[in-house]
Amino acid sequence: LRYWWVNHSQTAREELDGGYLWSPLREANGARSQFYDNMRIAESGDVVLSFSNGLIHHHGRVADFAVISPKPNSFDSIDNNWSASGWMLPVEWKAFATPVRPKERISELAPLLPKKYSPIHPISGNGNQKAYLAEIGAPVFEYLMRRAGLSDESFAEVGVTNGLALSNVDKSIESQISQDVTLDSTTQQQLVLARQGQGLFRSRVLELEKACRLTSIDNPSLLIASHIKPWRICETAGERLDGANGLALAPHVDRLFDRGLISFTDSGRVLVSPRLNDLDLKRLGLFEACTMGCASFSKRQAAYLEFHRTHVFLQTIQS
Amino acid sequence: LRYWWVNHSQTAREELDGGYLWSPLREANGARSQFYDNMRIAESGDVVLSFSNGLIHHHGRVADFAVISPKPNSFDSIDNNWSASGWMLPVEWKAFATPVRPKERISELAPLLPKKYSPIHPISGNGNQKAYLAEIGAPVFEYLMRRAGLSDESFAEVGVTNGLALSNVDKSIESQISQDVTLDSTTQQQLVLARQGQGLFRSRVLELEKACRLTSIDNPSLLIASHIKPWRICETAGERLDGANGLALAPHVDRLFDRGLISFTDSGRVLVSPRLNDLDLKRLGLFEACTMGCASFSKRQAAYLEFHRTHVFLQTIQS
Repeated sequence: LRYWWVNHSQTAREELDGGYLWSPLREANGARSQFYDNMRIAESGDVVLSFSNGLIHHHGRVADFAVISPKPNSFDSIDNNWSASGWMLPVEWKAFATPVRPKERISELAPLLPKKYSPIHPISGNGNQKAYLAEIGAPVFEYLMRRAGLSDESFAEVGVTNGLALSNVDKSIESQISQDVTLDSTTQQQLVLARQGQGLFRSRVLELEKACRLTSIDNPSLLIASHIKPWRICETAGERLDGANGLALAPHVDRLFDRGLISFTDSGRVLVSPRLNDLDLKRLGLFEACTMGCASFSKRQAAYLEFHRTHVFLQTIQS
Repeated sequence: LRYWWVNHSQTAREELDGGYLWSPLREANGARSQFYDNMRIAESGDVVLSFSNGLIHHHGRVADFAVISPKPNSFDSIDNNWSASGWMLPVEWKAFATPVRPKERISELAPLLPKKYSPIHPISGNGNQKAYLAEIGAPVFEYLMRRAGLSDESFAEVGVTNGLALSNVDKSIESQISQDVTLDSTTQQQLVLARQGQGLFRSRVLELEKACRLTSIDNPSLLIASHIKPWRICETAGERLDGANGLALAPHVDRLFDRGLISFTDSGRVLVSPRLNDLDLKRLGLFEACTMGCASFSKRQAAYLEFHRTHVFLQTIQS
């Protein structure tokens, strides 16, 4: 369990209403940012304090790993400097009855703040300019919860907005597709079906991939046509419908691949994320298959696999 | 591979455009009908000839097992005697360049027709009143394909409308939900999220079911909240959001359960469909778990399980 603090910029309302956090992959100049990398470190059950306009006014619980996602539509009018691809972290938010103003308590807070990557300045109490998602540790969190008159149990409740954020992103992409006058209606339909691994995309994948890479399942009704570069982040109709951008996987293998818990090298070695533990892999009956690997991939598949390894696969936790 | 003949009623256009066949579960008087039961016998790869207005004008390839589905919206204005629940069989259709009129060739066709459950009368050549989906055997099929100047290879092509029919049903239900003034907008949102096993439905299921019934997986990011009575056919908002109408299953177990390839007795014995072969079950690593079974189900779960065993589970082929 980790404790986080987010400094929303102008998009606090969109993020709170939508049940998520969203950040670019990197800074505008291309540099890595720990505050953006943290989006991929946060995981289900972690808690987040939401800070904007000088107030901590919501707490939240991370509902799932971050996934790569286009910038939510609602951001378009606010800040066009952000790149179009980023991390979307699903978070269940809950408003404080009484928001807390950290600046008023900065002398008590300062000794609890992290020395590096602090979300606010330990003297002024103002939000640090470049900070987005910052790890704060239990003491800061517990101090502010006490200030707000809340106990830890407030977090025990299960989330009900889980899935909403990504579902809204998908809907907005579908609506862009159906309004794209450069596409005929059959293509529009096939692009939407491709999201579910159905239609033209599926038949193209099954032409290239006859069986699941890890289980050898070749019964079509047990195979899922899974995008290598996710549908959500594909840049063109061509990528969304490209058979080389797909693998035919048994449903549990599809899940691991889709969530970035496994990936493949071009030569067919299986990469297992440190986020996936051996017991789960054994329960899924996939431990040996992951050790064995599979046949190598075509050049065209390899190009998509590189994207998967970089932006979907959950690599070593760096922080 | 089986050969089928369908006598469309007034809904030929909807079924051809939509990429499916749809029949009620039973006749209007509650009696079973072989022509409706055939909907569940047909499977992926089977071929179908489409007959209406005296002509065979399309051939098709079954894309997947039939699933229980509400009557497609487009039927509403045509025939209100049909019950609201039925079988939807996804079919990839292709029009004949030259339709064939069987009546003109009835003397040659008659000896090839099945003696029982024939789709047309062997003397008059008219469609049999009660026939919907009838099995015809290879000779009738081949005779009519020759008449239409087509070879068997016409069927080799892979399908691209697969998934369209069910996706359209789901969309139409979602649109009904969002127009239902008796539901507040939060409930509407939760009902739509429930289709994907997300949101309130998911959290309610995970309160009752802590781990997958067959794999013991208890990692939430590997569990799918799966409806026992399918979302598509639930009659009320309550059923769609009822935690007792769900199981938390690993993705491959979810697939088998969702497709009716496995089901459960109330006491936790696993029923394996004759449509699922042992090799596939072994490749999925579930053969032993299916032999072992699981803990028994609650009374409220058992009510939904009865529906699953009757209307989702693919039982013995009876024909």
